Amino acid sequence: MTTLDAVLARIDAEINTSIARLFDLLRIPSISTDPAHADDCRVAADHVATDLHSIGLTADLCETGGHPVVLAKGGAGAKRVLFYGHYDVQPVDPLGLWETPPFAPRIATLPDGRKAIVARGACDDKGQVMTFIEACRAWKQVTGGLPVAVTMLIEGEEEVGSKHLPYWVAEHSGELAADVALVCDTGMWDPQTPAITTSLRGLAYEEVTITGADRDLHSGLFGGAAQNPLRVLTRILGSLHDDHGRVTIPGFYDGIADLPPDVYAQWRALGFTPQSFLNPIGLSVPAGESDRLLIEQVFSRPTCDINGIWGGYSGQGAKTIIPSKASAKVSFRLVTGQDPAKIREAFRDFVRARLPVDCTAEFTEHTNAPAIALPWDLPQLAAARQALSDEWGREALLIGCGASIPIVADFKRLLGMDTLLVGFGLDDDRVHSPNEKYDLQSFHKGTRSWARILAALAE
Amino acid sequence: MTTLDAVLARIDAEINTSIARLFDLLRIPSISTDPAHADDCRVAADHVATDLHSIGLTADLCETGGHPVVLAKGGAGAKRVLFYGHYDVQPVDPLGLWETPPFAPRIATLPDGRKAIVARGACDDKGQVMTFIEACRAWKQVTGGLPVAVTMLIEGEEEVGSKHLPYWVAEHSGELAADVALVCDTGMWDPQTPAITTSLRGLAYEEVTITGADRDLHSGLFGGAAQNPLRVLTRILGSLHDDHGRVTIPGFYDGIADLPPDVYAQWRALGFTPQSFLNPIGLSVPAGESDRLLIEQVFSRPTCDINGIWGGYSGQGAKTIIPSKASAKVSFRLVTGQDPAKIREAFRDFVRARLPVDCTAEFTEHTNAPAIALPWDLPQLAAARQALSDEWGREALLIGCGASIPIVADFKRLLGMDTLLVGFGLDDDRVHSPNEKYDLQSFHKGTRSWARILAALAE
Repeated sequence: MTTLDAVLARIDAEINTSIARLFDLLRIPSISTDPAHADDCRVAADHVATDLHSIGLTADLCETGGHPVVLAKGGAGAKRVLFYGHYDVQPVDPLGLWETPPFAPRIATLPDGRKAIVARGACDDKGQVMTFIEACRAWKQVTGGLPVAVTMLIEGEEEVGSKHLPYWVAEHSGELAADVALVCDTGMWDPQTPAITTSLRGLAYEEVTITGADRDLHSGLFGGAAQNPLRVLTRILGSLHDDHGRVTIPGFYDGIADLPPDVYAQWRALGFTPQSFLNPIGLSVPAGESDRLLIEQVFSRPTCDINGIWGGYSGQGAKTIIPSKASAKVSFRLVTGQDPAKIREAFRDFVRARLPVDCTAEFTEHTNAPAIALPWDLPQLAAARQALSDEWGREALLIGCGASIPIVADFKRLLGMDTLLVGFGLDDDRVHSPNEKYDLQSFHKGTRSWARILAALAE
Repeated sequence: MTTLDAVLARIDAEINTSIARLFDLLRIPSISTDPAHADDCRVAADHVATDLHSIGLTADLCETGGHPVVLAKGGAGAKRVLFYGHYDVQPVDPLGLWETPPFAPRIATLPDGRKAIVARGACDDKGQVMTFIEACRAWKQVTGGLPVAVTMLIEGEEEVGSKHLPYWVAEHSGELAADVALVCDTGMWDPQTPAITTSLRGLAYEEVTITGADRDLHSGLFGGAAQNPLRVLTRILGSLHDDHGRVTIPGFYDGIADLPPDVYAQWRALGFTPQSFLNPIGLSVPAGESDRLLIEQVFSRPTCDINGIWGGYSGQGAKTIIPSKASAKVSFRLVTGQDPAKIREAFRDFVRARLPVDCTAEFTEHTNAPAIALPWDLPQLAAARQALSDEWGREALLIGCGASIPIVADFKRLLGMDTLLVGFGLDDDRVHSPNEKYDLQSFHKGTRSWARILAALAE
């Protein structure tokens, strides 16, 4: 029996006490957004630190200006990892929709026979965090040590935007040094197929206001002669896409590399279809670039969306006005190779080039986040992928995420560190909603997965 | 001395008593929108009826469900006219901006030496109505009769939308029968040049809502794949005009006749320029059909304007949403030859033809009014034009108005009657604003003008 086999066997043998420890953490109502639960957040942090101490790690509560951060260290060796997770949870309302109290965890049997842990935070992120902690515990108990040097950073403000964390990370960069960051806050492809999220789209978010006449005008007296900023705005925004769903801003796609052929082939084979992805929201036809796979449109291709528009009269009935101003919020999801600042300027140039002489445009910048992509050849990526594939008996997928996870950009920016996003959540986990759950298999095999990944990263 | 000359001489001799009578009417605060002034409205109606009675007309107050209508009759003969005006006035706030109390009429001297009557209602419409009444008075005093049979309809709800009047007119159509309607509620071209407004644009006003997904979506998770109704709406609305300012809806311009060459030549010579019309509102370049005169763009050509638009997020900062719905209010100013119902359907077809398969459109009809145009060969038009030209010493212009005047459409619809819009207001009269005024010359020569028009219409 190899050492790893012994560790995995230990995890299997101790699974019920592992669940009991997770239940203890789930009972703490650490709702970070609610000042009434500020003490509970500190209790949860204490609880995590005490638990980590019991494994044999050093563990301290660190003040951030908000809810405290748990910083723990253990293991030794040339290879170092930084694990990130969060102990805070979302609010529970509407409480009436919970089948059992949100902070009274229980094991439920799903209609298809799956077993799941039900509680607020079962998946996001207490259950996911505990898969890593329980894997470390098994390694410590079996070998007295850890395969790699582990630093753990468990924060308490993820659900409220982690506003204090980047400053704290910047001030403690020395203590956080590692080869790679590990985050357990994402999902599997499906209940049988593990996945590593290797790319996150960035975001450039703009607001534009177009001004025409210096006052609102009567559309009868001036209509036809006076330029209407709503006409100008819709004409400009309506030309941001061509007939094939491509964004028409010059240079928009410059610098974007195509997917590696093996990833493309893998994605193509996944059966990510309009039926599965769009039908549930009442749509049927992908609206992005018509020569791209649907999965590319949401994981690896940039977008342009109008997020809001306003101007003129929007009340009941009719008002015959030509407004002085028209505004919109327009955002771009970005991928690797695109510079948010350049995209922003290209958009502004696009608008300015289409302004009639009588109109002016004002711009406001709201968000400016570059895309994140793991290098496809990162050694830790291959190691973790193999470990996951070994555990689940099928090849772990490398997938993207259309949205941003700010901590990943912070680790890259502040620590120069890439992040492996490995998680065991499922689409039906009801994260942020009543009756949140985490499959027992996700918890059990998730713990085993981390045991394997720690071993793999040591090599 | 002809009879007309005697009447005109009488007007000149009596001008100060005419002004005094106008002042009496101006002192009554007949603000129709304010319930506190409901009694004042009835006092004003009584005052007008009593005054008309003093000339020798029959005059009665008629109940409408709102403020009463004054219905008066006098004169005889084969030719009949129906004169319309209103005794109600706009509110006076902001009161602090009035140089003297709004219901204490006075004669002011303008910086350029013109004399003007200053009071709420001086122009709109008490002063204008009194030009007609004083003309009738002079005819009665000099000849004992009127050149034509005159019916007068002076209402008290024009400033609040005349909501009871169409029903009253429909019920009293027999008493209102005449060859032509006369309205004194419009303006001159400039202080030296009289004008008859011969066309009013119609209005078709639509609201459209485009729906995509069955809920608002996260633009990170769905952006690129999910159709965005704001993209669809801006694309459709942005294609309503071509590069030359023409509306692109198929058939939009069908049935529209060009101006008669003499009217076109007259308009072309008027010097209606971007400097005079657009500069005061901060614009410089006409936005309508580029092959049309600016004056055509506002008087005789149809338009399409977006009057309001809304959808998605319009609050502070950024929200990464793809909204489920996007809406706009879109209206069309129409000219003779266009059928509002057909234009409405053509717009709806235009939208529907551009909807992606995943979007639906709902439409709401708000206003549906055809354009009004006097027949260019109407005998009364030529007669009145000649009378005006004689009085002012320069040819009276035939002009258009880009907006609607509902009573004109009502007279056409309910009585089958064309309306001559002859008025003596000026651009600087501050109608609806503090320090409203009416030039003494407008009042004096306006009265003389009506005396001439009554004579001309008798022939």
